[in-house]
Amino acid sequence: MNLCVLFGGSSYEHEISIVSAITLKKLLPSIETFVFLDGNHNFYLIPKDKMQSKFFSSKEYLKEMKIYLKVGGFYHKTLLGEKKLPMPMVLNLIHGGDGENGVIASLLDFYGIAYIGPRNPACVLSFDKELTKLLAKNRGILSLDYQVLYKGAQKEIKFPFPVIIKPARLGSSIGIFIANNQKELDYGLEEAFEYDNKAIVEPFISGIKEYNLAGYKSAQGIKFSFVEEPQKKEFLDFEKKYLDFSRTQNAKEADIPEALQKTLQDNFIKIYENLFEGALIRCDFFVKDDLCYLNEINPIPGSMANYLFDDFKGALEELSKNLPKSNEIRISYELLHKIQFAKGK
Amino acid sequence: MNLCVLFGGSSYEHEISIVSAITLKKLLPSIETFVFLDGNHNFYLIPKDKMQSKFFSSKEYLKEMKIYLKVGGFYHKTLLGEKKLPMPMVLNLIHGGDGENGVIASLLDFYGIAYIGPRNPACVLSFDKELTKLLAKNRGILSLDYQVLYKGAQKEIKFPFPVIIKPARLGSSIGIFIANNQKELDYGLEEAFEYDNKAIVEPFISGIKEYNLAGYKSAQGIKFSFVEEPQKKEFLDFEKKYLDFSRTQNAKEADIPEALQKTLQDNFIKIYENLFEGALIRCDFFVKDDLCYLNEINPIPGSMANYLFDDFKGALEELSKNLPKSNEIRISYELLHKIQFAKGK
Repeated sequence: MNLCVLFGGSSYEHEISIVSAITLKKLLPSIETFVFLDGNHNFYLIPKDKMQSKFFSSKEYLKEMKIYLKVGGFYHKTLLGEKKLPMPMVLNLIHGGDGENGVIASLLDFYGIAYIGPRNPACVLSFDKELTKLLAKNRGILSLDYQVLYKGAQKEIKFPFPVIIKPARLGSSIGIFIANNQKELDYGLEEAFEYDNKAIVEPFISGIKEYNLAGYKSAQGIKFSFVEEPQKKEFLDFEKKYLDFSRTQNAKEADIPEALQKTLQDNFIKIYENLFEGALIRCDFFVKDDLCYLNEINPIPGSMANYLFDDFKGALEELSKNLPKSNEIRISYELLHKIQFAKGK
Repeated sequence: MNLCVLFGGSSYEHEISIVSAITLKKLLPSIETFVFLDGNHNFYLIPKDKMQSKFFSSKEYLKEMKIYLKVGGFYHKTLLGEKKLPMPMVLNLIHGGDGENGVIASLLDFYGIAYIGPRNPACVLSFDKELTKLLAKNRGILSLDYQVLYKGAQKEIKFPFPVIIKPARLGSSIGIFIANNQKELDYGLEEAFEYDNKAIVEPFISGIKEYNLAGYKSAQGIKFSFVEEPQKKEFLDFEKKYLDFSRTQNAKEADIPEALQKTLQDNFIKIYENLFEGALIRCDFFVKDDLCYLNEINPIPGSMANYLFDDFKGALEELSKNLPKSNEIRISYELLHKIQFAKGK
């Protein structure tokens, strides 16, 4: 299958998106088209053989063809005008800001470009960790108790230590901090507020089990990946983080009872239906004392969670054939005609 | 003050947005710049003297200068290339789809254009009537009980008749229907599903009082309009709807006790804070048996609810000086450099 991998973006996850895109290139050799969005919101068409991390960190990409969005597609300048680029379906692989906050979804929808990825409302609800909790509650799924803190607004923490502090609108474990006392809490909040003026504090619960499940909706209904029990991420250094986004080898399937697998799948469906259509997402769940909690939704998971699928290529193919259709709006000017008639002009 | 009024959009409220823009032209003669977004997502610069409804319904606007968005501003083609248009701050006056669902906010943010209007998350949460109820609940505000229905999914209504049926993602009272029996309910749902595949059903409560309150955040804090008790809207014909969006005369201030005014203002603050910054919004409340319910949030109210402000021009000026700043993101390629170093390349 052919796809246009769109990656980069102006966000703290810019580099992680580059790693993800390089991983997809290795994994799906049939992909020929790569579009890079740099930190200044300029798009570049990147030749496949230049898809290496150094090409971006050295800014060599600046010499490549600059392209831009117009109604109907990506264009580039020519000597006498401009030309539309032939372009396969876009895969939105921009993690974090731009990609996961709904901006890119809005742009692609506005310009009428078909894409795999979460739509704008799905992005907004999964990008902000508080909104994710509201969504979970609304759909009958548990999530951990929490408090919202805004930069500059002093507030008592209602939980005993240890607590976990997260910037509200950031993924990839960036800026996450576990605090065992007030001093560490102050430090952790300062850290979190470097990234976002809104932070979430949750009780840090030890002995919790984590399970990841990915899936998407095909024409036949929701299809699931297998379940993984991921490595503990408490001390994610840069190399582990890199490894997490560059995985191409299938993960080990978690050895869990059928009932738990069913619970995870049921919760996945509740989250996905009528919101995430068009996207392949990964839901990260916690299980403790026989209760299942939603931890987070990754609407554009690192390297598309390829390592959780027995047939990743087949999954993307099925998904690409079942994208949501936008509502056709006919503008008739009926109201204005009536007004003009009523006014006699 | 000078502003660029952006209006139109591909939505059922396209024509209403034109009426709103013409109203603002009459109201604020200092506004010189009007940008029209047509149903095909093309932007046109409209000369001020052509701002009349017929100019759009007759499609004469197609002869005007076509402009397009790029990083930093609106551009137009010239013989030898392209040129950036000098442009004052944008006022997003696109009601409904495009304007109020976060698409235009995303575009303006992406291209780095300053604007008055709700940001993307604020749009998403106020555009969908179910999400508005979740937001209200989360912020400690009552809203009417409801049921969500999706097109094609049969479901029993849990309320006794009469009920009110609304398309979930549509404003301006379009597609709203009161049903007194099952037959009317079936008809009303069919109507609603013409506009959206998601509908909201609420009990229709008679004897309810409605109050509208607008406001915005200035550098000094939240500023309120006065409160209006609007005309009943049960039988909004096209002319009343037109009148509603073309109001320029100040409304009659509602004669209400101070305690009620305070309650409305307190609820407005709870909704607005940390979400609607940058926008002038109108909240429509219901009051029954001494309880105050949020009915809906208009993040881009018809003709900007000018008729609720004693000094509307002053309000826009204050707001324009207190827009949210976006978080500056520096991309250092630190992670990629470390990876390259670790790999020895």
